[in-house]
Amino acid sequence: MLDQRIALDVMGGDLAPDATLAGALALCTQDGPRRMDPRRVLLVGDERVIRSRLDALGGASQLGGDGFAIQHASEVVGMSESPAAALRAKPDSSISVCVGAVKRQLAAAVVSMGNTGAVVGACTLGLGTLEGVRRPAIAVTLSLTGRPVTLLDMGANAAAKAQDLVQFAEMGAVYARGALGVEAPRVGLLNIGSEPTKGTDLLKEAHQLLAAQAERLHFVGNVEGNDIFHSAADVVVTDGFTGNVVLKLLEGFSGFMLHLLLKELKAHNVEWTQDALGKVRRQIDYAEYGGALLLGVNGIVVKGHGRSDANAVANALHVAARALDANVNQHIVSGLRAS
Amino acid sequence: MLDQRIALDVMGGDLAPDATLAGALALCTQDGPRRMDPRRVLLVGDERVIRSRLDALGGASQLGGDGFAIQHASEVVGMSESPAAALRAKPDSSISVCVGAVKRQLAAAVVSMGNTGAVVGACTLGLGTLEGVRRPAIAVTLSLTGRPVTLLDMGANAAAKAQDLVQFAEMGAVYARGALGVEAPRVGLLNIGSEPTKGTDLLKEAHQLLAAQAERLHFVGNVEGNDIFHSAADVVVTDGFTGNVVLKLLEGFSGFMLHLLLKELKAHNVEWTQDALGKVRRQIDYAEYGGALLLGVNGIVVKGHGRSDANAVANALHVAARALDANVNQHIVSGLRAS
Repeated sequence: MLDQRIALDVMGGDLAPDATLAGALALCTQDGPRRMDPRRVLLVGDERVIRSRLDALGGASQLGGDGFAIQHASEVVGMSESPAAALRAKPDSSISVCVGAVKRQLAAAVVSMGNTGAVVGACTLGLGTLEGVRRPAIAVTLSLTGRPVTLLDMGANAAAKAQDLVQFAEMGAVYARGALGVEAPRVGLLNIGSEPTKGTDLLKEAHQLLAAQAERLHFVGNVEGNDIFHSAADVVVTDGFTGNVVLKLLEGFSGFMLHLLLKELKAHNVEWTQDALGKVRRQIDYAEYGGALLLGVNGIVVKGHGRSDANAVANALHVAARALDANVNQHIVSGLRAS
Repeated sequence: MLDQRIALDVMGGDLAPDATLAGALALCTQDGPRRMDPRRVLLVGDERVIRSRLDALGGASQLGGDGFAIQHASEVVGMSESPAAALRAKPDSSISVCVGAVKRQLAAAVVSMGNTGAVVGACTLGLGTLEGVRRPAIAVTLSLTGRPVTLLDMGANAAAKAQDLVQFAEMGAVYARGALGVEAPRVGLLNIGSEPTKGTDLLKEAHQLLAAQAERLHFVGNVEGNDIFHSAADVVVTDGFTGNVVLKLLEGFSGFMLHLLLKELKAHNVEWTQDALGKVRRQIDYAEYGGALLLGVNGIVVKGHGRSDANAVANALHVAARALDANVNQHIVSGLRAS
């Protein structure tokens, strides 16, 4: 039986449609364990554009007889459009058609590099939340030290209640265990000191609630910003405001540091440094992580970075496949029932 | 007339007392515009220890006739002691004696590398807040791009009200203008999107209040985490919880990146890279910024990093001198009156 299908929003993203199509092609023609059956990918977007760009990329010849399925969508939500207004004005947008495909069970996952607000809005409203979930959360997994650290919520909601943070812990742990293979993932609460009495009232209350389930959730207590870089926890829980600030700060700082280093190394004019830099860049580059998961909705949703290239798109598709194959959503529902 | 004196907490910090003494010595014996008159420094701590370590560092011979003034303090608050309890139990601690020196007008500033909670607590309670100030704030200035960016509050208070954020904007702008020489500093509000309606209720309210004084405060609106790295604002305002997370994240990430780079460059085994790395390290190293200012209290307070070496101590003393010479506190009071 064919694995569950992934609807790819071909039109979303700064480099769409070429980067999205090239990413899907790369994942389905590469050698190795990540190779995907092209029939697992449902390309969603302007059918004429998709066929012509796929031809230009040599898609038909590379894939042979087993091509991608295509679902036509006549509209696109632009990267800088106001999400709510754009979703209303464009019912046939590629992201809305992706969501429709999951609702009609033509696919089980959505992967998009498009407008973040539109992806989160369309998927949250269109797919609904899983049984027992109060609010969905955006989860991002970093592998800076070689050991994956999953942070959530990175911005699905600006504000959170203490009970939301406990659910984020549950969802993050299920994901880390099922999809990332972390045994007994340790959960930490992002805070400004290690003592349980540190931080805002929200954090103190969340700490109490998490401590009450410490054993089941492997709660290791508060972690601070710098602890993320020495794997003090496998899952780091925070409200969406703080999480989004953290995410954009990491993105800005890594870009800034690489720029600074390139400048200094260029001043010394040695070629091999591209090697070393390439490795460092891959280790910190957002694109390598394959994007963010919207956990807690009724379907697997992966939101890749707007600037994703083909490699990042392939990684995002792989993240979606891994989450589907690990039955992450079933495990979230049973985890929340047990809590 | 001698400039206003700075009380240096000789005993505070992981590398005290040698690093604190060596830092003061370095600043008072170096050539150049930053050189400080040793009579401007009041060394506070165990007098016997100070004299013996100063001798060992060659202090008397380097300074000649004009030595440091010394104020004895028989106790020290340890770096990991609970601040409130330690301050109560140790009335003759070096940090409390520093605060006492300012209260008795023997000094106008405190510089300490010691226990952060104890420094903030002793100075806030002991010195009181400036006229009109609701809450003090910790300000940290980064010069990543060559242009200084002052962020506050980096953790003096866990929670903030919208009016607090407006005062932080005022204090940060006064400091940037007076002490850092930034003409008409642009104020930004750290948020998760550029639109005025973005973020939590706190941020929406603060945005409205700041926008009402946009012209006077040069308010440029919301800035995001990545904007810090391309100088979108000269003063970035946030609550102490978010600020502290940001600060520790930057510290952890820069350390992690340097470690990663050193490893990769070592694998290529080329010596000159230490040059380039040294320059990068100086550009991102926390120690180079001379520590954090506690703005809004009745006196100038500089809290250096606990791990400060002599160079970082010298920078912290310089930051205090610059703030005193710019009459930052008088300007804060008149700025708040005007608002």
